[in-house]
Amino acid sequence: MSGRVTVLTGGVGGAKLVLGLMQVCPPDTISAIVNTGDDFRHLGLAISPDIDTLLYTLSGRANAAQGWGREGETWTFMDALKSLHGEDWFLLGDGDMALHVLRSHLLTSGETLSAVTARFAAAWELALRILPMSDDPVATHIETDRGDLPFQRYFVEQRCIPAVRAVRFEGAAGARPAPGVIEAINDPDTRAILIAPSNPWLSVDPILAVPGISEALAAASAPVVAVSPIVGGQAVKGPTAKLMGELGLAVTNEAIADHYAGIIDGLLVDERDGGKGLAVPHAVTDTLMKTLEDRARVAMAALDLADRIAG
Amino acid sequence: MSGRVTVLTGGVGGAKLVLGLMQVCPPDTISAIVNTGDDFRHLGLAISPDIDTLLYTLSGRANAAQGWGREGETWTFMDALKSLHGEDWFLLGDGDMALHVLRSHLLTSGETLSAVTARFAAAWELALRILPMSDDPVATHIETDRGDLPFQRYFVEQRCIPAVRAVRFEGAAGARPAPGVIEAINDPDTRAILIAPSNPWLSVDPILAVPGISEALAAASAPVVAVSPIVGGQAVKGPTAKLMGELGLAVTNEAIADHYAGIIDGLLVDERDGGKGLAVPHAVTDTLMKTLEDRARVAMAALDLADRIAG
Repeated sequence: MSGRVTVLTGGVGGAKLVLGLMQVCPPDTISAIVNTGDDFRHLGLAISPDIDTLLYTLSGRANAAQGWGREGETWTFMDALKSLHGEDWFLLGDGDMALHVLRSHLLTSGETLSAVTARFAAAWELALRILPMSDDPVATHIETDRGDLPFQRYFVEQRCIPAVRAVRFEGAAGARPAPGVIEAINDPDTRAILIAPSNPWLSVDPILAVPGISEALAAASAPVVAVSPIVGGQAVKGPTAKLMGELGLAVTNEAIADHYAGIIDGLLVDERDGGKGLAVPHAVTDTLMKTLEDRARVAMAALDLADRIAG
Repeated sequence: MSGRVTVLTGGVGGAKLVLGLMQVCPPDTISAIVNTGDDFRHLGLAISPDIDTLLYTLSGRANAAQGWGREGETWTFMDALKSLHGEDWFLLGDGDMALHVLRSHLLTSGETLSAVTARFAAAWELALRILPMSDDPVATHIETDRGDLPFQRYFVEQRCIPAVRAVRFEGAAGARPAPGVIEAINDPDTRAILIAPSNPWLSVDPILAVPGISEALAAASAPVVAVSPIVGGQAVKGPTAKLMGELGLAVTNEAIADHYAGIIDGLLVDERDGGKGLAVPHAVTDTLMKTLEDRARVAMAALDLADRIAG
């Protein structure tokens, strides 16, 4: 099978699937639509955590042991910042700062986030297209039992401890999909549209909240397949399971399928959970992505399911 | 003798004198008025090289061997910036970035350069007052045989190689002395006003170009004593001698005294040159400041000359 592949992705888990896709498809046939709801301004710098995680992961710069940030990172900036009594709740590695400073400078100079992201991807010789969901600011806010928290305050500063009551995406209603996003979904040459196993409520919903994206997915001629973030009744990483509980949902693939109802045509689930009771077309594999081979296998399984759905 | 001391200073050489002063006077009696003509925006960051050199030198953070920047600096940011094809002609150390980022953020938030500088000095427990010459932007431009160059392009990128024809200070005519500057010159409790052995044309003239500062110095009741940057018919460091030649001046203390005519009441010169032919009151010492003891000795000699002039 040939054709383009479009993938919606958030942070670390999503980046693993995209890296897997790059093993099984020519990179220049892949378009990744990336969550920017986590983006925020910190010390005046424009920080785009999910875009950077993808750039690091795909270019071989990610710190795999730590699970975030750069390999070989140093922390002299943070030490100096602390000595000046600067805000230190959000860790900024020395190398990571290069992306934040250059992006901030280029945005201030009038470049769009799309253009900056394409520039970084080109500098690091990445052939896939990395598309922010929008060039307009959208800010994920978490309504919790400790009040309303911007995403990074909830995720980093409060370490996901507050109980979530609702999630909202400020600015989403007025945001436009970034150039290329709708085209990547509508492209008649598209073999599959994948939704990475990123947190559906925190990482994928912001993308779906940008007007036009859900509608395009629902109407897409290519099959839309989500990779479930559930493995053995748990989330692999991060606050997905805890958040589902707080929202009154069972931590099951049925709940994931319900969440994406109207959007997806298929769901790839982990073999520990199986497809029992799932009404949506599905396939089963080991979805844990520890090695590069795992990532390629999961990507391949998602594409196979899409091909099967397409008939 | 007691009383306050005010010192006009530029970069590395000036910072050494101020450090010397801190050995011989209570730090909280010292006010340093610092050149900000070298300040510039780079990658969107507000960089104040002379203020930072003073902060590093006085707090024991300066890299003495290298002659600029921080001790224990790391360069991960620059490496990452280069990989992204960012501008790399101006070196930004990882720790140095903390000052630039925090200063830029605070300036954007509406704080003045004076306030930011006082905040940094307090964080690093420096008891002297560090006063930017102005909170308004003043930009030193060098007119050279290769065209008009902003200071850092001339100094860093072109390594002072272009021949200087003139120096001008953009924005100076409309700039106001920062709060405390005129007061530090006029304070009736002032024992001496020193001009550090910084480059008179590049580092001290921008201060004198801010309307009100020259006039206050000329009218000051305290004696004004400059430490000559000439040692043995040469400049210790930097482009002073080369620049004097290009401006058609002999590299002599007479030329320095002429330059500061109407401002200074005395000149401290190096023993290698002596005071022969100098019309202005002067004293002679070894003005090379290699060790902390040297710095204290030169500061003391400058204060002694001031005391002698004051009678």
